Amino acid sequence: MSVYLDNNRLAPVDPQVREAMAPLLEAPYGELHALHKAGAKSRAAYLEAMEKLYAAIHAPENGDIFVTSGRAENLSTLLMGVYLSQILTGRKSDIILSRRASPAELEAARLIESQGGRVSYLPLNGEGVVEPDTLLDYLTPRTALVSIPMVDEEGGIVQPIAELARVCRRYEVPFHTDATHAMGKIPVDVQEMEVDLLSLSSEPLHAPAGVGAIYLRDDVELMPMIFGARSHFERYRAGPLNLSGLVGLGKALELASDALDFEMEDVRERRDRLEEALTAIEGVRSPIPWALRIPNTLWLTVEGIESELLLYELDRNGIQAYSYTVEPFGYWKGTPLCDVLGLDPSLRHTTVGFALSRMNTDEEIDETIRVFTESVEYLREFSSRSPKESA
Amino acid sequence: MSVYLDNNRLAPVDPQVREAMAPLLEAPYGELHALHKAGAKSRAAYLEAMEKLYAAIHAPENGDIFVTSGRAENLSTLLMGVYLSQILTGRKSDIILSRRASPAELEAARLIESQGGRVSYLPLNGEGVVEPDTLLDYLTPRTALVSIPMVDEEGGIVQPIAELARVCRRYEVPFHTDATHAMGKIPVDVQEMEVDLLSLSSEPLHAPAGVGAIYLRDDVELMPMIFGARSHFERYRAGPLNLSGLVGLGKALELASDALDFEMEDVRERRDRLEEALTAIEGVRSPIPWALRIPNTLWLTVEGIESELLLYELDRNGIQAYSYTVEPFGYWKGTPLCDVLGLDPSLRHTTVGFALSRMNTDEEIDETIRVFTESVEYLREFSSRSPKESA
Repeated sequence: MSVYLDNNRLAPVDPQVREAMAPLLEAPYGELHALHKAGAKSRAAYLEAMEKLYAAIHAPENGDIFVTSGRAENLSTLLMGVYLSQILTGRKSDIILSRRASPAELEAARLIESQGGRVSYLPLNGEGVVEPDTLLDYLTPRTALVSIPMVDEEGGIVQPIAELARVCRRYEVPFHTDATHAMGKIPVDVQEMEVDLLSLSSEPLHAPAGVGAIYLRDDVELMPMIFGARSHFERYRAGPLNLSGLVGLGKALELASDALDFEMEDVRERRDRLEEALTAIEGVRSPIPWALRIPNTLWLTVEGIESELLLYELDRNGIQAYSYTVEPFGYWKGTPLCDVLGLDPSLRHTTVGFALSRMNTDEEIDETIRVFTESVEYLREFSSRSPKESA
Repeated sequence: MSVYLDNNRLAPVDPQVREAMAPLLEAPYGELHALHKAGAKSRAAYLEAMEKLYAAIHAPENGDIFVTSGRAENLSTLLMGVYLSQILTGRKSDIILSRRASPAELEAARLIESQGGRVSYLPLNGEGVVEPDTLLDYLTPRTALVSIPMVDEEGGIVQPIAELARVCRRYEVPFHTDATHAMGKIPVDVQEMEVDLLSLSSEPLHAPAGVGAIYLRDDVELMPMIFGARSHFERYRAGPLNLSGLVGLGKALELASDALDFEMEDVRERRDRLEEALTAIEGVRSPIPWALRIPNTLWLTVEGIESELLLYELDRNGIQAYSYTVEPFGYWKGTPLCDVLGLDPSLRHTTVGFALSRMNTDEEIDETIRVFTESVEYLREFSSRSPKESA
């Protein structure tokens, strides 16, 4: 049995998404501006998909949504746009990120800092949460943008976005949240949260990777980074549009919203059952409070076993999990989650994560429990770093 | 019968490309860096596709190719990267483009100029060609980049890229060509042309739109614009990678290279037959010399008939053609092709183009000849601006 549990990073394409995309790969669809039937077909497909994007985040009609190639472009566009239009021009001076900002934000920030811009990194509390009062301490009249991911991708921790946005609104500082890992897991409503900017990306949504979107409130300025726009269709981002990807994303968001009420509850139950079984093993802990997490994510420390070895042993037995801290090339360049949560430094390289999707079955969870339990037992026997010795 | 002849702007997906992409939309493929079987599957698919990209442009092993979201990103990345790293820092001062540069280049240039950078626009000769001597006149020791498209998308005019690159090499100025409309139409060999940078984009290649690539010679510097790279896989451009798109592009490039020898000759014959039949009509001319054009493109002026009306009438009768000058939102913001070729200004809004693909049949060409002939006759009867009256 092969069990795929790395769905936060990349979730397999849903058959219904594939079906929605199929027509675009089968007959001529014209360029979005073309004056002929194939062009009109594309415009119709575009508008239908965009309606699904608006619905998924409850965007108001006077807000703008534009299509991108996904998360790295979203975050690079926002940060570099603010840098070029606000900081380089002297209108504002700094940007505020989370210490758990993603690699795209951290690298854009590094460039901005190298060119004389200022970036602050918000500390998180012991549960991995950015507190509104902390944000208030960092905010200045010279802040050009605050950007906080809605959900921590590795640990699944949900941030209090509405409260953080309220702090920013009080001081008229634009607030952005990356909702990529919130979509379909918890409700996302740009009007209720009153955010100025929100971005999302297809990879955890059972749509093909490499397509995303940015929402902006009507009174927010944004500088495009990919030039050549020819019409209102691409006011903020020139084409060629990945139309099949957009249609897939639209369908995926529709399915994700539908899943919120029922399927995500089943996912939560399966995740909870997995959590209960695995944390019953000696030295295996789930350090992030249950109530703070999205329903599909389980993040563990496994005392005395190196993550890389555990991942290898799990994979050898058909279970595909993740660990961001130890993978080659070091996924997170920011603060490791272990440090944020104040865990013993010896645990830093013992983390493993399971991100379920609505496609996982009860049998797969049974198999994961069986393989994980056996793997931990086997590796502890094998390893010289068993809990007893390291204690 | 529906005949699609707007293949330079967007060509329908080839069934073989669709087939190559299918596995990626059917089973879990992991993120490129994931330590499990699904990740390994993605890395294998990535490497196989990249090999096809290297082969398609005969890139040396020590050169780099990285994947993008297509033409607008390619050109924006190159120009903004050069601006930020060379011009803003005072190392160099100007960029040289063609007067027929694409909207992405023209808009990036406008931003660069607004920030104090300098951009020159090379004039073309009466046949729409950038002459090496003209480039020589514009080149200075302060030039940071020269960028000339290999083929004019609207007219299909092929530029003398090897000669232009030689001029730049003599003065050690980096030279880029956008080969998007050359791929699969004429041979493209980065080593033979000795270009420093080359970019391409999927839309005319019978692959899904929204994926592209940039090639750089090993000693060329380039500043990434989409941040967050975690490994050599994405040294110049962070993900999430549009892997299904890349696999489609790889297959499409393989098919395009194979088509060069045989199918493109058939396309040329069909194009020539169309050209002969249509230019036999009174007041219909093909102003661009045959020898200068890629084999699939026919660009006409139709005296006394507005392009928009002609496009409408053709489309109503199932023939999908293009005209960049008159379409809504004005596709070309640079110099109109009519002006470049020194044609009578009254012809500026009478242009129509046909871009064939290897998917078009002889029957479709017959139908196009029939419909075009009848449409011109009908519209001239209808219109008050017949050739006689306007003469």
